[in-house]
Formats: sequence, structure tokens, C-alpha cells
Amino acid sequence: MSVKDEIPAIFLDKISPKGLEYIQKTKDFVNDWCIPADQLYHDQISLEPSKRWKSTPEVTGKLKAKAKELGLWNMFLSKHYPEGPGFTNLEYGLMAGYLGRSFCAPEATNTNAPDTGNMELLAKYGTPWHKEKYLKPLLNGDIRSAFLMTERGTSSSNALNISCSAKKNAKGNYVINGLKWFASGAGDPRTTVWLVMCKTDDNPDAPYRNHTVLVLDAKKALASGRAKNLRPLDVFGYDDAPHGHCEIEFNDYEVDAEEMKNVVLADVGRGFELIQSRLGPGRIHHCMRLIGAGEFALIRVQHRANHRMIFGKPLMRWESYLNQFAQFKIDIQKCRLLVLNAAHKIDISDAKGAQQEIAMAKIETPRTILKVLDWGIQMFGAEGVSNDVELARMYAHARTLRIADGPDEAHLGQLARQEMKKYKEADKFFERHAAQQAKIAKL
Amino acid sequence: MSVKDEIPAIFLDKISPKGLEYIQKTKDFVNDWCIPADQLYHDQISLEPSKRWKSTPEVTGKLKAKAKELGLWNMFLSKHYPEGPGFTNLEYGLMAGYLGRSFCAPEATNTNAPDTGNMELLAKYGTPWHKEKYLKPLLNGDIRSAFLMTERGTSSSNALNISCSAKKNAKGNYVINGLKWFASGAGDPRTTVWLVMCKTDDNPDAPYRNHTVLVLDAKKALASGRAKNLRPLDVFGYDDAPHGHCEIEFNDYEVDAEEMKNVVLADVGRGFELIQSRLGPGRIHHCMRLIGAGEFALIRVQHRANHRMIFGKPLMRWESYLNQFAQFKIDIQKCRLLVLNAAHKIDISDAKGAQQEIAMAKIETPRTILKVLDWGIQMFGAEGVSNDVELARMYAHARTLRIADGPDEAHLGQLARQEMKKYKEADKFFERHAAQQAKIAKL
Amino acid sequence: MSVKDEIPAIFLDKISPKGLEYIQKTKDFVNDWCIPADQLYHDQISLEPSKRWKSTPEVTGKLKAKAKELGLWNMFLSKHYPEGPGFTNLEYGLMAGYLGRSFCAPEATNTNAPDTGNMELLAKYGTPWHKEKYLKPLLNGDIRSAFLMTERGTSSSNALNISCSAKKNAKGNYVINGLKWFASGAGDPRTTVWLVMCKTDDNPDAPYRNHTVLVLDAKKALASGRAKNLRPLDVFGYDDAPHGHCEIEFNDYEVDAEEMKNVVLADVGRGFELIQSRLGPGRIHHCMRLIGAGEFALIRVQHRANHRMIFGKPLMRWESYLNQFAQFKIDIQKCRLLVLNAAHKIDISDAKGAQQEIAMAKIETPRTILKVLDWGIQMFGAEGVSNDVELARMYAHARTLRIADGPDEAHLGQLARQEMKKYKEADKFFERHAAQQAKIAKL
Amino acid sequence: MSVKDEIPAIFLDKISPKGLEYIQKTKDFVNDWCIPADQLYHDQISLEPSKRWKSTPEVTGKLKAKAKELGLWNMFLSKHYPEGPGFTNLEYGLMAGYLGRSFCAPEATNTNAPDTGNMELLAKYGTPWHKEKYLKPLLNGDIRSAFLMTERGTSSSNALNISCSAKKNAKGNYVINGLKWFASGAGDPRTTVWLVMCKTDDNPDAPYRNHTVLVLDAKKALASGRAKNLRPLDVFGYDDAPHGHCEIEFNDYEVDAEEMKNVVLADVGRGFELIQSRLGPGRIHHCMRLIGAGEFALIRVQHRANHRMIFGKPLMRWESYLNQFAQFKIDIQKCRLLVLNAAHKIDISDAKGAQQEIAMAKIETPRTILKVLDWGIQMFGAEGVSNDVELARMYAHARTLRIADGPDEAHLGQLARQEMKKYKEADKFFERHAAQQAKIAKL
Repeated sequence: MSVKDEIPAIFLDKISPKGLEYIQKTKDFVNDWCIPADQLYHDQISLEPSKRWKSTPEVTGKLKAKAKELGLWNMFLSKHYPEGPGFTNLEYGLMAGYLGRSFCAPEATNTNAPDTGNMELLAKYGTPWHKEKYLKPLLNGDIRSAFLMTERGTSSSNALNISCSAKKNAKGNYVINGLKWFASGAGDPRTTVWLVMCKTDDNPDAPYRNHTVLVLDAKKALASGRAKNLRPLDVFGYDDAPHGHCEIEFNDYEVDAEEMKNVVLADVGRGFELIQSRLGPGRIHHCMRLIGAGEFALIRVQHRANHRMIFGKPLMRWESYLNQFAQFKIDIQKCRLLVLNAAHKIDISDAKGAQQEIAMAKIETPRTILKVLDWGIQMFGAEGVSNDVELARMYAHARTLRIADGPDEAHLGQLARQEMKKYKEADKFFERHAAQQAKIAKL
Repeated sequence: MSVKDEIPAIFLDKISPKGLEYIQKTKDFVNDWCIPADQLYHDQISLEPSKRWKSTPEVTGKLKAKAKELGLWNMFLSKHYPEGPGFTNLEYGLMAGYLGRSFCAPEATNTNAPDTGNMELLAKYGTPWHKEKYLKPLLNGDIRSAFLMTERGTSSSNALNISCSAKKNAKGNYVINGLKWFASGAGDPRTTVWLVMCKTDDNPDAPYRNHTVLVLDAKKALASGRAKNLRPLDVFGYDDAPHGHCEIEFNDYEVDAEEMKNVVLADVGRGFELIQSRLGPGRIHHCMRLIGAGEFALIRVQHRANHRMIFGKPLMRWESYLNQFAQFKIDIQKCRLLVLNAAHKIDISDAKGAQQEIAMAKIETPRTILKVLDWGIQMFGAEGVSNDVELARMYAHARTLRIADGPDEAHLGQLARQEMKKYKEADKFFERHAAQQAKIAKL
Repeated sequence: MSVKDEIPAIFLDKISPKGLEYIQKTKDFVNDWCIPADQLYHDQISLEPSKRWKSTPEVTGKLKAKAKELGLWNMFLSKHYPEGPGFTNLEYGLMAGYLGRSFCAPEATNTNAPDTGNMELLAKYGTPWHKEKYLKPLLNGDIRSAFLMTERGTSSSNALNISCSAKKNAKGNYVINGLKWFASGAGDPRTTVWLVMCKTDDNPDAPYRNHTVLVLDAKKALASGRAKNLRPLDVFGYDDAPHGHCEIEFNDYEVDAEEMKNVVLADVGRGFELIQSRLGPGRIHHCMRLIGAGEFALIRVQHRANHRMIFGKPLMRWESYLNQFAQFKIDIQKCRLLVLNAAHKIDISDAKGAQQEIAMAKIETPRTILKVLDWGIQMFGAEGVSNDVELARMYAHARTLRIADGPDEAHLGQLARQEMKKYKEADKFFERHAAQQAKIAKL
Repeated sequence: MSVKDEIPAIFLDKISPKGLEYIQKTKDFVNDWCIPADQLYHDQISLEPSKRWKSTPEVTGKLKAKAKELGLWNMFLSKHYPEGPGFTNLEYGLMAGYLGRSFCAPEATNTNAPDTGNMELLAKYGTPWHKEKYLKPLLNGDIRSAFLMTERGTSSSNALNISCSAKKNAKGNYVINGLKWFASGAGDPRTTVWLVMCKTDDNPDAPYRNHTVLVLDAKKALASGRAKNLRPLDVFGYDDAPHGHCEIEFNDYEVDAEEMKNVVLADVGRGFELIQSRLGPGRIHHCMRLIGAGEFALIRVQHRANHRMIFGKPLMRWESYLNQFAQFKIDIQKCRLLVLNAAHKIDISDAKGAQQEIAMAKIETPRTILKVLDWGIQMFGAEGVSNDVELARMYAHARTLRIADGPDEAHLGQLARQEMKKYKEADKFFERHAAQQAKIAKL
């Protein structure tokens, strides 16, 4: 099916011919190369603890070569970035709607988190040195990166709580202390750079200026023994090796004089601003990939339903199946419209101007897709919870997205506060209403 | 607030300057004149059974005059109709999003059902005589009309079940027999024309060609004594006088020779086609008015919440209130996007081409808005179920829209059947998948 | 079907043989006499405003005579009251589970609110004079009563907010000022006594001792012109004439010296205590009647489903129908267990001891039954919202029970506060857990 | 807190003093020994593939010794079994409500599935040889067992679909061919006996007599090379080593002459009957353990909420938290009542007589507890999806219980079919209703 038939009517004329061409290419690449490679990818990861984190599945390199050949590379970098291929957020959103169907596809096209957000930050705020040393190989898919934000024991979605400290010692070098966890990608053997959210000041009068993003050489830090990768954390029972979600401890880790020259991203005290700018498009990417996962789950379930016999009738002929399938098509469509509308709002204003739209998309999409995936699991019976199909793994991943980048509750609370800024309008409305009522009665 | 700030980003550049101007005018008219008149409207309807169905509240005439003066008249007639003001379905959809805030607004602007659908039919299929006799005064708001479709004792959403018969007698005149009910608007003293879905043939080989829409002079029919308005039906205790939802019995009612000349709308046997064409935009109108009702309910509740003290704290400061308010903003937004996307699809193709989008909107919007209204009732406590606020009445009306024009179940079933036409794609997908898997393994 | 087969296993041996006999008699009486009389009851109420509130449907008297003859009278008065027939709350709860199937049944058996709660109060706290003048004729079904509690403009579920004042004048007589509304039963021409919750003191140090229940002669009060029945309030579009939910205004109404002798129920300042004791069993009655309504709705729907053809197949053969029916059977059963467990807890302790169980039942039952009724309406299509079946009326009534006697939110909040009193247990649990963990590690 | 305060009122007098004593002992043992050992248990399982399935965590043995010492052993074997301690299903149900709080507790008390059901079968249907060889060491906790039922590629919840064949060869020995999977416990190194559901006949006239349960020596079968443990299956990434959920392939496995003497459990062709009898109480056990898991999750969350600061206020002071907590208390209570009522129904009739009650409990409990656990995860943020708390693991396990022993859909469908057997009652009801209506009208 042509992607054109899958794009909601209202978005059609917003997409350039090149955009449409690459959306189609993305779909075809994902369906033909990435989804069929997913099982192989997992099979190529060793169960031996000593080998599990040491290498990347071989198939990844092959897919990356194929993607590059097709020009399907770094599509996430929107047209504001000269380094990117020049798509809008809306166009890339539609591509991400296909990338999300496959575990392998984001890495194959160099559009995987957290590298995407890190590349955006380095492109926007990095020094020439940052760009040469880290951005270039990241853009080329040669290295990987991690973003060390979340901390154990505190509500990290409120960045004011971030306490990992970077203080200058007598030599003028930062000394870092603190415990970060759920640092996604930190387990990958190719990860050579960490962006670390640190508390560099403690001024109660300017709480939003106390934090700074530091750019650290990950290999050097680990080699020092003063930064330790304590362990990978599981998500449900998945460790997501070799990518991993790691717990990293800094124990008086001193940044050396050479690295100090470029350790600060943007400026000291601009940490808040940076993480804000990082999150907007990233949330849209997550949401659109989830929509891709949901759509793929429906294809997967449909395939089963075509053949699975229940009391002598294929599952696909059961009314409860049919109704639920149709209902999920609606539910997914509602999310798709929310997310793409938010992407377009970013395109015509910016992430800040689209804050409300992004929040709505971020709240609704994961929980909708979780319902789709959960139903998919149920339709597959015991096989559904296993890894013979990808549904349980997709579920575990989608479940994290009701927490990552701010839990549902934080976004809903923020939306509520925005709405409540307008609460006096209701009073004004009914004041005017009363006046008009009197006027009309006398007409 | 400017309407521009309330229109989702993606629709903004689809709206003409004139469209935008009239959307704003609609909002202002509804807020300033219609909502404040709603209570008065109900107060002007007599409780005496002998008077209740004999006249229209006086305020209606005043609002109609005001609306005409402002040019807010017949906006529903989209640009395909030379008789209308030339708006797109999208533009009118946005206007309907304000009209739905007030009980009075649709009639005040001559955009009330079932007149709207009837006018569309007469404009599209009517003879010059139909247009002169009925369409013109309908367009002018001088008369009203009813559509007699639903029958007691059968599932009328499947029009094949419609059994009210029109058979030609020896004189060549139709003789009508049958029982119609829930004929909305049939109670209105100004209703002078009925469009009646009749079974004119009984050919099992062409079941979709057995029905015809007849155009009847309502006053003449009732005067004959062979067509009787048996009673108004209640909706949750509301009789909606003088509009009404009536039960009409035809007992050998013979259409006279004069009327026979123009009694058939379009052609004999095209009943199905006509009701199909009637329903598409009508459903969008209903949905957008519901969205207006939902948004108004939130304003109403907010006003209460600003002042209602619960354990010493205004309701609006309670977290459960705030979260629910924000969640409903999301839920309404999702429906708005569905409905407006469907309206736009009608604009760029037609109602048939937008069938799936319309079905989605029709399924989701009433049940979403019912939840909003139900919450509004709860927030108002005992007052909420009374008629001191409009929430219970709005609820009763919205509840009918999960049934009217086809119950949710019918639309969901139809969507499912559409989806299932594609079921073999899943098999093809996994055939190709298997082939590619083998290919990739050998790379 | 024998009622024995409908009682959950665990309750069977708690029911006396006499109890079981009367539960069966109740079921038979309701099915054979009350449900078949319901339509007649409504037909016998005049639409003329001048007559509508002046008399009671004739059929009521006939049903009452029949019920008395069968000994089905005042079953709500539990065995703590010598005036009653001596059933437990559990036994009466099961009877109420049948009474709730019919609009007429509660009045026919003299078990209708608010008379039931009023009779309990008068029996428990009344003077001999109260008992002779009001309790006796109430028990005999000769008069009716109202409880004037709820006030406009305040959250009356928190009785601290009740502001209707009763202050003694120079003569030592109470002078009452205030506005009560939703006084159910106050419209009935037979209502001769009002129990009125008044603020008799304003001591901030003993806020729960500021209120008193006064016993007023309703006819005398209305005749004075200083107490006015301003209007009946609608519930959705139902006015529930002649019972009614009325707005009563006291404007310097002075209780005369004669009435002052017995105007105070129990003692001055015990209003809180009285309304608390009144509410426990009453909530159980409401819940069990709702369960009866839900079960009856399922019978009603099943009857329709047996005959209604949808695309050539009776509704009852559609899987979506079957599954939903079965699911509602479960949902109702869950509520039944909650409610009956609460009734039994009252029996073995008292209403205060069963506070938590009652709250759970009160929160869950109305919203569950509303879902059942709403589905019933949907299955009936347009007919469902009309009064040709009782579903919409039942819905409107059930809807009020998410508000009356405290809205869901109040009960849930109270439950939460009870739970949170135990919050330190979790800390203790994990302190001990840590100690044991250390111990086990060394085993 | 005394367990007496946690038992719903209605069940209190059904519990013997000894029952109450052991319920309390169970609670204390679980809280003091099992929950604190859970982390240690998991830590003692090697990550090395070569060691992971070879041994049982050391702590298990210590807990088992402790439990035996306390007399907390085999409590699941209800008083119908002379081998057991003589509790009712209701009493054991209440114990299981505590056992479910801990991963370790069921094995520690020898009440873990699938051994429980297997022991019941062997006790009820086994030959003296079966009892000596397998039942005795199972009852003593010395060996473990598996039940090989589910097959890949078919809907195994309908046992008619079971195709693993056992056919007698020329020697009169069964030769088994087929593929079983999700054989829980089959990974355990101590598992020495398999109960295998096989198709021993193919008579279309008696489809429910075609299957037989065979008792196989697991070690011998695996040693033959003709029965292979192909792999453990994951559940949301967990392999549950060493217990495991295994895929077992039979490839012309011939039962030898010696084993043939006792290979059939009960009789040939009684497989259906046996699996039916096995499932009733087992479902109740699962449900009650889930309720224990849900309650423990609430304690776990409460502990966090006491200390977790959100915008300067502990989580436990947020209204949304409080309301959700209270709501879950209600939801769990509803399930508890359903399950215990079913357990009591089994006690006073049998599993067949309680079929409907068991189905209701089986449908409702897993999905309710999944919601509790999902909320628990959300309240823990990133930590919630990890294995630093037990919530994700509990979730994965609970998720399988919407599938195991028949998916929700199968049970709901069965309930619906039961209900629909009574559909004619609705017709009779309304026939009588019409007759009575006529009678009443003439009174």
C-alpha cells in the first residue's frame, strides 16, 4: 500500500515530493530489511555474561550500510540543521511511524535515541571541537552516546532535583560526584561520549540556572576508575544488551585540564534550557515510533487471526476480534492526529510553542499503544508473552515511555496548570452572560 | 479569545479569510446572544399540554433576526450548493463547534437538524416545484421540516428493514401505510413538509433499489386523518417541545393527484442513495456541535469550580479536578482532530470518500462528550441533574447521538468490515518477511 | 427461579427460614404485581400542571393493600426495632434486590425513601408524641414525609456547611430561615411531616454540635406562608410527580409554642449524630435496589435480544452481546457481594463499624448499574431513551445516587483518609523486612 | 495487624480456630521469612547459561525447613485428601492471599503450581505405585513435577485440540509424538515426573473420551534422547530459571514395558475429566495469590509514597495518589469477595458446582491485579520497571494468568453460554407480565 493512502487527509499537502518519496522508502526499507532482521539481531547477542556487552550484532552493520546506500540516514535532523537531510518534523514523524515497527530500524538509520537528542544538542550548542570529535562520528554512525540525567532516589522529571555535582577544585577542574541510572546506551561498547546533567551551582535565587550539561569522554572516565558502570538495569526481564540502561557512579571523578577546555556544553548554568530543547522533538519521535509499533502489532495479530482456529472458526471471523481491531484502528488514528499536529506545530513555531500539543501526544500515545500491544499478546495466548513474537518486548519498551521524559502525571499536571491560567475567563464569560441575559429579556 | 488560537495548527492554512471571519462571528454571536437566551427559551414554553405544542418561544424569532443581520445564516450549505454562503465543510465544522454550545444557536442560524439535511436533499435532488414550495421557505427559516425514517419494531439503521409501504392504487396514486417514530421536528407547528422513506418495491434481487423518498405536505396529510401524529416521545423525560420526536402513523393515506406530480424525490428506487448522501456531512455537524457542548460544559464547570468550596479549598484547586479537566481537554482535542480531518476529507473528495473518517468521528465523539457532560453533572452535584444548568439536557441529547444515524455498533461493525477487506495483506506481509529473512541471513 | 439459587453461596446459611420465605414472597410480589403496574402508575399521573401534584396514582393504593395482605410491609425496619417485622439487614438487603426492579414496589411495601430513614429516626429518637402523631401513620402507609437537608449553594455532603438557621426568638420559639432543595417527597400531597436539619448554634469549638434535626408539621408550615414550596426540581427531564424533589424556602418561619414542645428530635446539637445513623442502612437499601434495577434491565434486554433481528440474526446470537451480558453479570455480582457483606457487617456490629464496607458499596454500585442501564438503552436503540421502556428513567434515578448521600468523591476521599491512617505500617513493614533480610542472609 | 481484621465480615464464622491460627502463621511466615528472602533467591541464580538451570537457590531449602517446622506445609490439599492438613478451600484461600505476596513463599510451603495440581491428581487417581514413587516425595518437597498440556500452534484451552499422540506399538507400548510447550517447572533439575495430556484415541463420536493423562518418568524420557527439552521460553524477558517454562518435543518416544504398568492415570480416555478436576481449586489458588501480590504492591507503593517528594510534598499527600489507592482497595476487595465466595462454593458443593463462581473470579482477578501492579510500577518511575522492586516481575507473572488455564475470552464465553441457556425465561417473564398487566388494569 502506498504511504500516501496511510497519511491522514489533512496532512497530505504539507508534505514535499521529496518527503513523500523518503517516507515511502522508509516504509519499504523497514518492511523488507529491518523487520525480517529483528529475530536475527536478538539471536546474535550472546547469553554469556562475559560476551553479552562486548559486541554489536553483526546484522546491524549490514543494515546500516543498506540504509546509507538508500539515503535513509539521520532523517530526524530537521531542516533547521544544516547537517541533516532537510525534512520537516512532520515528514520525519511519518517516517518514524514506520521505523517504530522494527527493533532494528532506528539504529539502522542512525535515528536511535539517545543519540538523536545528543546529536541535536551537539549540533546546536557544540564547539567546533565537540563537532569534530563527537558529532561527526555520531552522524556517521561510527560511535554511540549516552545522556546521563536520571538519578536514583529522586524525582528526576523535575530537573531541580538533579544533585550530581560538578565542583571546581583548586586546579580549576570539575570534580564530579553522584549516581546516575537508567543511562540508556551506556552499555554499548561503541559509546564514547556522555552528556551529563550536573549541578554546578547552588543558588536558591536562580534555581533554573544551577545546572550545566557536561560533555565527557566516556572511555576516559571509565578507565579512571572514578566513574563506574555499576550494572545494567533490567526493564521487565530485558537488559537490552548491548545498548543497556546503566547505573553510573561518579566518585570524585576529576575532569582533566585538556578535557576541561570543552567540557561545558553551551554555557555554565544553561542545563535546563538544553534539556528542554532536547525533549520536544524527541517526544514526537518516541510517539510516532510507538504508533508504528501499534500498527505492526495489528498486522502481526491479523496474520495470526487469519489462521488461528477457535471452535472451528478462524479468529478473524469472531465479532469480538473484529470490533476490537476496528476500535484500535480508531484509537491509533486519534494518537496519530495528535502527534502529527504537534510535529506540524513545531515546524511552524518551535518546540516551546508546541508545548501543549507535545504534552497531549506524550500522555496519550504510550498508553494507547500499550493497550494495543496488550491485546496483541492476549490474541497470541502463551506465545504472546514469549519472545517468539515481538509483542512482549515492545510492551516492555512502550511501558517505559509512560515514565521516561516525564511520567504521564507530570505532563498532565503541567497541562492542567496551563489550563488553569485561564480560569478567570470562565468568570468573565458568566459576567457577560448575565448582562446579555438581561438585555435579551428586554428585546 | 480569538478563534484562531482555538483551531488546531494543522487546519489553520486551510481556512479562508472570510471563513475565519465568520467563525469568529459565530463564536461571538453564540456567546453573546444564544447562550444567554437559552434559559429564556425554555421558560417561554408552556407546561400546559394544550399550549405546549402550539407555538415557538418568542425569543427564537429575535435571535433569527439578529443572526440574519449578521449574515450568520445557512452556513451548513457547503460551497457545492449555490444557495449557500460558500463555506467548506471544514469551515462550517469549526462554526458548528461554537453553535453546539447553545440550545438556541442552531435554530437561530437556520442550521438545525433535520432541516439541514432536508434542505441539502431538496437542493440537490428537488424539482423546481420542490425548491419553490419547500426549499425557499426552509432556507428563509419560515417553515420547518421532518425526516420520517425510523420505524418502531425494526432495526432502522439498516434501511433494508424499512417497511412503511407506498403502493400505487388504481388511480395511480401512492397509498402509504406504516408506523414511523422518532420523527424529530414533526411536533413543530411550523413543520409543513415531511420527507418519508418508503418501500415502493419488493424486489429481492435489487434490495437497495426498493426504497424511495417521498415529499409530503405535512399539513395536508394530518388534515386527512389518515396520517396521525400519535404522540411525542420523551428522551430521558424531555419531550423537546415544540420540536418533538413524534410517532406518525399512516393508515391508507392516499397522496392526491396534484401532489403526486412532485411526490418522488429524485427517482423511484433511489431512497438508499439519498439517505446515504444525507448522512455524511450531517454526522460531522452533530459531532462538531457536541464538541461545542463539551467545551461549554468545561467553561460551566470551571466557573463553578472557581467558587465552590470543598473542605475550605475551591474545587479548582483540587488535584483530582485539575487532572480530570486537563484529561478532558485532551479527549476533546482528539475528537476535534478526528472530526475536522473527516470534514476536510469530504471537502477534498466527498462523503463517500470520507466514509471511514466519518465513521470514526461518529463513534468517538458522542461517547467522549457524554463523559465530559457526566463529569460536569457530577461536579455540580444535585444541581447538575436539574435543569438549572444545561448539563443534564445536553447529556440526554448527546446520548441519542450514540443511536441516531446508526448506533455505535453499526459504525464499528462497518469499519471492521472495511478493515477486514485487507486481511490478506497480513499474509502477504509475512510471506515476503520469510523470504527476506532468508535473504538477510545469507548477507 | 427460586431465590435460593440467586443468593451467593456464602450468605445462604445466614438467612433464617422466615427470611428466605419473605425474600421469595418479595420477588414474586414484585414480578407479578409491581413491575406490571409500573406503566399504569405513570399513566395515571396527569400532565396538567394544576392536577399533577394533587393526587397519587390509584394503582398505588391497590398495590399497598395487596402487599399488606401478603405481610410485605416495612421490611426495612431491622430487628433492632420492635415496630418492624424482624429481619436482618442482610435479609432485607436481599428483598430490596427485588424491590428495586420496579418503580412502584418500594412505595407498595412502605419501604420507600425518604420515609424509611425518617421512620428509623422517629422510632429510635422520637418522643411518644412523635411516635403517635407521625411514626404510626408512616408505618401504616397513611402519610408521607420529607427530609430537608440539602441546601443550594453549598456542598451539603459536608454537613458542617448546612446553614439553614433555627434561632429562638423572645418567646422561646424557633424562627427558621434558609433555603433547602432536593427535598425528595416534599411534593407529595400526603406529606405531613418534615425533618429539617438546622443550624441551632454557631460554636466554632464544637462544630459537630451546632446542628439539630427539627420535626415540623409540613402542612402547618406551608399554610403559614413563611415556608414555601418554591418549585419541584427536575432530574434530567423527570419531575417525579407527585413525589417530587422540591425547593423549600423558610423566611422567618416561627414554630408555634405547641409545636415547640416536640420540635427537637433527640436533643439540641445532635443533628450530626442523627444524620450519620440515618445514612448507613439507607445506603445499603439504595444499593440493593439498584442491583435489582440492573438485574431487571438485563431481563428486559434479554427479552428484546431474543427477538430483535440484526442482519438476519437475533441480537442474542451476536458475540458482542453475549460477552457484554456475561460481563455485566460479573460486575453486578461483585457489587452484590460488596453490598451484602456491608449489610452483614451492620448486622454483626453496627453502621459505624461497617462504615468502610458501606462506603465501598456506595461508591461502586451506582456507577456499575449506570453502565448496565446505559448498555440496556443502547441495545434498545431509540426506544431505549424513551419512556416506552423504563431504562432511561432508571438511569436518571441511578445517576442521582452518585450524588445523593454524598458524592462518590466524598466517599472515596473518606476511604482514602481511613487507609492513610495506617500509612506508617508500611514503614514498619520495611524496617522489619530489612532486619529479617540480614538475618536470612546469615542462615 | 491480626488477619482477623483483614477477613471480610461474612467469612469470619466459616473459619475454624485452627484455620484462623494457620492463616495468621502463614501471614507471619510470609512477611518475616519469605518476602525478605525474595531478593536473595534471585541473586542466588547464576547468570551463566551453563549453571543457570542446574541448581536451586540455597535459600529455598532453608525456607522449606522453616515452613515444615511451623507446620506450614501442603495447606492446599483440602480436607477431602487424607494426605493433607485438613483445611477448607476457603481457609487455604485466605492463606494463599498471603503466600502470593512473595515469590518464594509457595515453594517454601510446598504449595507451588504445577505441583499442587499434580499432587491432587496423583492423590485422587494414582495407583499405589504412583503414590509411593511420585506423590510421597512430592508431598515431602523432595522432587518436583510438570504438567505437559499446552501445545504450540493450537488453541490448547480447548482440550479437543490437543494432538500429542500416544499410540500403542506392536509391543503394546505407547509411542509418543508431539510438541508441548510452556511446560512450567520442566526446567527444574529436581523435576522427575511429567503428567502428559495425550491423544490416545481418535473417535469422532466421543471426542471427550479421546485423551488420556500419562505419567512419565521425566529423567528416563530425557535420557532416551527421544524426548527433548528444546528450550526454556521467556515471559516478558524472564526465563524463571530454574523452574522454567519449557518446550518439550516427543519424537517416537516409546514408554518401556516396565513403565507401561502404571503409565495411565485413572483410565484411558479420562483425560478430560482429570484436567477439569485439576483446574477448579487451582484457579482459586492463582487468584488468591494474585490478591496477595496486589496487596503487597500497595504496601510497597505506600512505603515509597511516604518518602518520595514530588514538588515538595510527599507522594502520599497528593490527592490523585490517595484516590487511586482507595479505589484499588475497593477493586481488590471486590475480587477477594468473588474468589472467597467461589472457594466456599467448592467447599459446600464441588468444583463443578462452583464453575460459574470460579469463572467469574478467574476473569476478574488477574486483570484487576494487573492494574494495581501497573500503577505500582508507575508510582516507582524508572525503578518500577526494573528488578530492584518486584513489581515488573509480578506483572509479567500476573499477565500470564489472563492466558493460562484458559484465556479470559474462553471463560467469558463459557459464562455467556451458561447465561444464554436461560434466555427463554425472559420471554416467560414478559408473557406473565402482560397477563398480570391486564389483570391489574381491571382491579
